[in-house]
Amino acid sequence: MSDLPLSDRAGWAADGAISTLMAQAIENPDCLSLAAGFVDPATLPVELVRAAAADVLAEPRANLLLQYGTPAGAGRLRIEVLERFATLEGVPTEELAATKGLTAGRVLLTNGSQQFLSLIAQVLLNPGDICLVAGPTYFVMLGTLAGVGARAVRVETDGDGMVPAGLERALDRFEQAGELARVKLVYLVPDFENPSGVVLSQERRTAILELLERRDPGGRIHVLEDAAYRELSFDGAPSASLWGRDPGDRVIYAGTFSKSFAPGLRIGYGIAPRALVQPLIDRKGNEDFGSAHFNQHLLAKVLESGKYDAHVEEVRDGYRRKCDVLLAALDEHLGGLPGVSWRTPAGGLYVWATLPEGVSTSFGSPLAEAAQHEGVMYVPGELCFAPESADGSPRPAHDMRLSFGVLDAAGLREAAARLGRAVRSVL
Amino acid sequence: MSDLPLSDRAGWAADGAISTLMAQAIENPDCLSLAAGFVDPATLPVELVRAAAADVLAEPRANLLLQYGTPAGAGRLRIEVLERFATLEGVPTEELAATKGLTAGRVLLTNGSQQFLSLIAQVLLNPGDICLVAGPTYFVMLGTLAGVGARAVRVETDGDGMVPAGLERALDRFEQAGELARVKLVYLVPDFENPSGVVLSQERRTAILELLERRDPGGRIHVLEDAAYRELSFDGAPSASLWGRDPGDRVIYAGTFSKSFAPGLRIGYGIAPRALVQPLIDRKGNEDFGSAHFNQHLLAKVLESGKYDAHVEEVRDGYRRKCDVLLAALDEHLGGLPGVSWRTPAGGLYVWATLPEGVSTSFGSPLAEAAQHEGVMYVPGELCFAPESADGSPRPAHDMRLSFGVLDAAGLREAAARLGRAVRSVL
Repeated sequence: MSDLPLSDRAGWAADGAISTLMAQAIENPDCLSLAAGFVDPATLPVELVRAAAADVLAEPRANLLLQYGTPAGAGRLRIEVLERFATLEGVPTEELAATKGLTAGRVLLTNGSQQFLSLIAQVLLNPGDICLVAGPTYFVMLGTLAGVGARAVRVETDGDGMVPAGLERALDRFEQAGELARVKLVYLVPDFENPSGVVLSQERRTAILELLERRDPGGRIHVLEDAAYRELSFDGAPSASLWGRDPGDRVIYAGTFSKSFAPGLRIGYGIAPRALVQPLIDRKGNEDFGSAHFNQHLLAKVLESGKYDAHVEEVRDGYRRKCDVLLAALDEHLGGLPGVSWRTPAGGLYVWATLPEGVSTSFGSPLAEAAQHEGVMYVPGELCFAPESADGSPRPAHDMRLSFGVLDAAGLREAAARLGRAVRSVL
Repeated sequence: MSDLPLSDRAGWAADGAISTLMAQAIENPDCLSLAAGFVDPATLPVELVRAAAADVLAEPRANLLLQYGTPAGAGRLRIEVLERFATLEGVPTEELAATKGLTAGRVLLTNGSQQFLSLIAQVLLNPGDICLVAGPTYFVMLGTLAGVGARAVRVETDGDGMVPAGLERALDRFEQAGELARVKLVYLVPDFENPSGVVLSQERRTAILELLERRDPGGRIHVLEDAAYRELSFDGAPSASLWGRDPGDRVIYAGTFSKSFAPGLRIGYGIAPRALVQPLIDRKGNEDFGSAHFNQHLLAKVLESGKYDAHVEEVRDGYRRKCDVLLAALDEHLGGLPGVSWRTPAGGLYVWATLPEGVSTSFGSPLAEAAQHEGVMYVPGELCFAPESADGSPRPAHDMRLSFGVLDAAGLREAAARLGRAVRSVL
């Protein structure tokens, strides 16, 4: 095989993390995975999809559902998504149209919200441009940013999310370095962040937007609000978004039906600022002409049927129960160990656990080897921290992302027992 | 709205052509479209999809079809695709494995073949890199190349496809200019090219590969074989591919189920050279984690059922009949006009028609306005020619791409009558 010159982007996209995790899983099939961010297989809506597929294919002109759609997606689903979004916002669609100029024309359908995140990165960021992120944050987004040659820079973050004063210090630092113009994006996962489970507090949502309005009144620095877990609050109440507080067109909102319904349909969406609608559609057209038209009608049928809310309620209850199981099992197997702690999430799919500083959780560490030996997998926390930080703080390497998404209660208990043994073996 | 600085790529992706055509169609809903490259709605397989959806969702562990898949796609469909590809090649899979090292691991599933073309462009081409193309060629690919900042350069082309001597002259020219290292790709649509309907002759397929082996023995210049229309030969016989002639890993093959089955499922595929498999998977992972898992199993079910071939046969027959209708109607309404001609295709979806030089078919031309007035649409030929040519030849602007894909026989006859009136009005 010759050593072919690939594009710069091909090099930027290379990332061994997921490959390493998958290889571990394949080599060790009896392994219990607290690593996979997949959804609970028991909640996957086979009956709803079967009924919707049959119904939608029995509609007049059903053949047209099998035709090409458009890059922005089927109007029928964009309208349903807009209504669902308005419900989450607690504001009628008419009012959103009047006060925020929001119409279905600004709702773009993508292959999961991941494609929307990727399109935003492509449309906004040149190589060398800067995206500010929480630490820790969604590690796949770090790969997406690297994939366009952008710099992801970590901002001070605590149990209430990104620290506004830390964000301001980061802006100061880039201003002093003459790089403020390269800062184009702040990426936030305000609800039950993957991986930390942290909720960005309501006060900080307001403070971050006020800070950006003050420092960047032209709206040149966008906020990308990744709301993937917004519907998965254990108490069922959606929090007030950053988008809803935005006085202008700064906030870009990404949503998905992967976590609440079925990732196998690959339907996510974005609510785009007016100036980005056409560039995003052009880029999506270049990449794939639009997502599967059939799936869009199928999901629209589910939403029209009124059965979606009850399904989400079930999903939410299931994750709350499984989270309780994992937390209790962690208490049993890791409780009281000095320097070992974890956060109790109020929604989402993840528990973030921290070991004593100096006890590495990274690939190749004694803990990773012990976990592999015990037959349990987690996501090393290091992957979730952008290497570069605004305040020069080092990249922590002693945390773990534990997902209660895939395993059932018995699996979670056994996985926690294995993890407990592995941790005890290295402390 | 502020004038926000978007990425360079956002500017590269902007392309008004499809937007202009769509706006024309919306403004003028009684318009008959010979422009759209959509498939015949009458052939869309509602019953096959309905049965496959029901069957696949009744399988044990059907819930897992609604889970995330992998970036490369479901093994079940990759194996079916490999078998289908082997049938087209006329070579058993075991022999392909032994002689070419081809396994299902090199079959990548994408959102239509368009996403595969886009991934190839991303992985191989840096801004300023060169892709050589036929003239005319698939105009969406020209947009995809522009979207990564690459230079598409037109090579001499005639009724048997790209001229090998023209390709060699192009390589000479780039060598003399010190730019040969920037030539990374030759893009070819060998079967019933969109838009010209031209088949790249068997001799030229061999000659082009021999030429590249001679000039670039290291295989640095890849050939991207876009086989979107390969199954749509009117006589049912697939032609021998460039891929099958490749002594090494130069040829990248793109196929799709959009034209032969249903574009609304968005399933295309690529057969990747060994060195590109991982970079393509990494890039696809960054962009969307993988295409819809559910759809992949649904299509696998169709292929497993053995009903696919009969369906393709029907599709093929339908297009042959509709092509005959359009050709007869063109004869009736445009026949004998001086300087007006068109090609008789042996497959695919398109008739390429040429007007006298100097009679522009481009947007805004008197003909375009006459056609809009008559209520008929075509794709202006100019869009299908890369602006830059290797031999300095000007970009032709007096052709039209006419598709017989969407309209039924009566629609094709009426559209040809309208086009005839429009053409006569400007000659």
